[in-house]
Amino acid sequence: MSAKTTEQTNHSNAEHSVLGGLLIDAGQDFYQRGWMLGTSGNLSAVVSSDPLTLAITASGAAKGALTPNHILLIDGLGKVKQGEGRSSDETRLHLAVVRNREAGAVLHTHSVWSTLLSNDFASKGSLLIEGFEMLKGLSGVSTHEHSELVPIIENSQDMESLSVSLEEALTKYPKAHGVLLRRHGLYTWGRDVAEARRHVEILEFLFEVTGRSHLAGASGTP
Amino acid sequence: MSAKTTEQTNHSNAEHSVLGGLLIDAGQDFYQRGWMLGTSGNLSAVVSSDPLTLAITASGAAKGALTPNHILLIDGLGKVKQGEGRSSDETRLHLAVVRNREAGAVLHTHSVWSTLLSNDFASKGSLLIEGFEMLKGLSGVSTHEHSELVPIIENSQDMESLSVSLEEALTKYPKAHGVLLRRHGLYTWGRDVAEARRHVEILEFLFEVTGRSHLAGASGTP
Amino acid sequence: MSAKTTEQTNHSNAEHSVLGGLLIDAGQDFYQRGWMLGTSGNLSAVVSSDPLTLAITASGAAKGALTPNHILLIDGLGKVKQGEGRSSDETRLHLAVVRNREAGAVLHTHSVWSTLLSNDFASKGSLLIEGFEMLKGLSGVSTHEHSELVPIIENSQDMESLSVSLEEALTKYPKAHGVLLRRHGLYTWGRDVAEARRHVEILEFLFEVTGRSHLAGASGTP
Amino acid sequence: MSAKTTEQTNHSNAEHSVLGGLLIDAGQDFYQRGWMLGTSGNLSAVVSSDPLTLAITASGAAKGALTPNHILLIDGLGKVKQGEGRSSDETRLHLAVVRNREAGAVLHTHSVWSTLLSNDFASKGSLLIEGFEMLKGLSGVSTHEHSELVPIIENSQDMESLSVSLEEALTKYPKAHGVLLRRHGLYTWGRDVAEARRHVEILEFLFEVTGRSHLAGASGTP
Repeated sequence: MSAKTTEQTNHSNAEHSVLGGLLIDAGQDFYQRGWMLGTSGNLSAVVSSDPLTLAITASGAAKGALTPNHILLIDGLGKVKQGEGRSSDETRLHLAVVRNREAGAVLHTHSVWSTLLSNDFASKGSLLIEGFEMLKGLSGVSTHEHSELVPIIENSQDMESLSVSLEEALTKYPKAHGVLLRRHGLYTWGRDVAEARRHVEILEFLFEVTGRSHLAGASGTP
Repeated sequence: MSAKTTEQTNHSNAEHSVLGGLLIDAGQDFYQRGWMLGTSGNLSAVVSSDPLTLAITASGAAKGALTPNHILLIDGLGKVKQGEGRSSDETRLHLAVVRNREAGAVLHTHSVWSTLLSNDFASKGSLLIEGFEMLKGLSGVSTHEHSELVPIIENSQDMESLSVSLEEALTKYPKAHGVLLRRHGLYTWGRDVAEARRHVEILEFLFEVTGRSHLAGASGTP
Repeated sequence: MSAKTTEQTNHSNAEHSVLGGLLIDAGQDFYQRGWMLGTSGNLSAVVSSDPLTLAITASGAAKGALTPNHILLIDGLGKVKQGEGRSSDETRLHLAVVRNREAGAVLHTHSVWSTLLSNDFASKGSLLIEGFEMLKGLSGVSTHEHSELVPIIENSQDMESLSVSLEEALTKYPKAHGVLLRRHGLYTWGRDVAEARRHVEILEFLFEVTGRSHLAGASGTP
Repeated sequence: MSAKTTEQTNHSNAEHSVLGGLLIDAGQDFYQRGWMLGTSGNLSAVVSSDPLTLAITASGAAKGALTPNHILLIDGLGKVKQGEGRSSDETRLHLAVVRNREAGAVLHTHSVWSTLLSNDFASKGSLLIEGFEMLKGLSGVSTHEHSELVPIIENSQDMESLSVSLEEALTKYPKAHGVLLRRHGLYTWGRDVAEARRHVEILEFLFEVTGRSHLAGASGTP
């Protein structure tokens, strides 16, 4: 191993450790809020972009009690480069988001409100959220007079097929900050873990506002 | 006491202590989430299967503030072998589940949503939950295209009679991961405490999704 | 001061300190759950019954951040015997409950669901809750086949008049475990702080179950 | 710098530090309760009134993880006098409230219920809340027979224009304890941080009570 490679690896390890800590924190908070119950959801962050290396949660880990051992390093093909166990079953989806959005972090949550809305608005193909100040918490949005169209894709256990659907949605809705999987949950992302975590909080808040109005028989959007 | 028996007892004590800690943790979390308010609910784990020995919460203990003194050891007839006080009034139900499902842990919670649904769907005899990704958190379920039928049995204060009803439901619905007691709560289980706890979280999540849709006048199932 | 009186006082001080700690703990938990927001609610416990001495929270204290300084000692006329500040404005109501029910602790909470139900069922004069297993968490109730009738009295700022209404309700409903004040909140009690706290948790749970059914257009009772 | 000025500055710094701690605590609690998700909301407290100096949260800070570095000192024109970064975008609104109400602290939250109600009652121009005991938690209110009229103003990204609307509402409703910004959130205040924080808790509680009744089709007010 050349000196340069060693240095890169060390750098990656240090980065990995810091990013792992941020993912662990996010997992604890989301679990407490009921957005990652059971072993649901998964979390990733880009450690290096060339070659592409992701820190990602191991498959089957309880997100409220993650330890550094649950954070694996994978390459751009989803192959585990460091750590024990399998990476999340939805690794392909994380990679698809990273590539399509040049994201630095991808977070996937399962909340009650995202599950409800992703089902009830599935026939429309997307959920429209507009007019709320909280929308300004989404990257690049500077006014409440913003229309956020969150695409909704059908769920599937064929990860190849699901990642294709996800990429199509990302391409068709280039301005979307998140994608809903029907009766499944939310994928969102950001340039770093802090931004992606902010996007989870903003979208989950707006889902609750929209969902409560919707279930009460109102339109849920202005 | 022979050397062998002493060794087994020591082993049981060590196991008991570890399992007791897991039950205490589960109790604290469920209490915080409002699934074990008052002194409601009870928790057990198998310490040894031959002879059958269970660690189980004492009757009347507040589940948010359990200490090792609240975890008793009972035998297969429900007789207390170690610890002070009576074991949970619902000890027979725990033993019935352990035997019918070869479970390593049995958890019983009282949540708002399980109470509501167990009443509103009682006349149907079961609650159907299908199509949700979260179903994959149930042991052996590998697709969201799964139909979970949760049997609902009438509540009773006759523990002999209630344990018979429970066993009948377990036998009639061999694939069920939980049983609802009408206007009472949920029994679920797993091969160990971690799996049983995951089942509580998954089922309570799905009860909330289903319950919110149901109360809003929707079908609650797809 | 005679030796005997000194001993009694010391005993009272030690009791006061332990009971104060239990009230502080209850305040923190109820505040976290949203049942004692702002400076709402108040808490008391009997330190000695002869002469009657109560530990009670000071008026205007934030219940999520109580310190021993916020716990005053009062006599049977509501006069402060120890500690600084005024005792709760609702001191008379606490004394009325202690005398009518021979209670060892009285807890008064302001929750969203008790506020809603105390208004919507006011014209009936009481709220009927029956058929739930959680009812067994109320002292002396041994079956879910129990009908708990919670009296609802009109609110008033005249504490003399309000304590008379409360006493009348306690006398008219001798089996009730709590009283609702319209658009105000819940009074409940127990032989000690632990039992009173359990009663708060049980009743608040049942209010949420009943309230959710009620708002959805169901009867809220079987 | 004269001795007197130095003393004033030291005094301000000590005050700033204490007030900063209170704002940090409020931010953590509101974030946990879901009233300041993402980087939403902002918090300020008056350090000195002559010349007017405010401690205020920096723009873009996550309110659940504030540190002393996120608390800036600004003058009466909104210019940063101490600390790094920009002060909150809504600094003008804080200054408008401080001047109009002679407030010692101004807190701005984004909750689900304030977002829903500020939209659904916008056409009425205000939200009427009356008859609740919890109203007594608002400064100067001594009876539940109080009618709190919370003005609702249209949201805007033009902070000059929005602060003018806010001042008009404050002047038109001189007894109001808070102002709702449509689909945005709540502004409330108090003579100090403790009172302002109490007002947030009281108003958010009343919004939830009113909102649940409203969505269920009831009037939400008696």
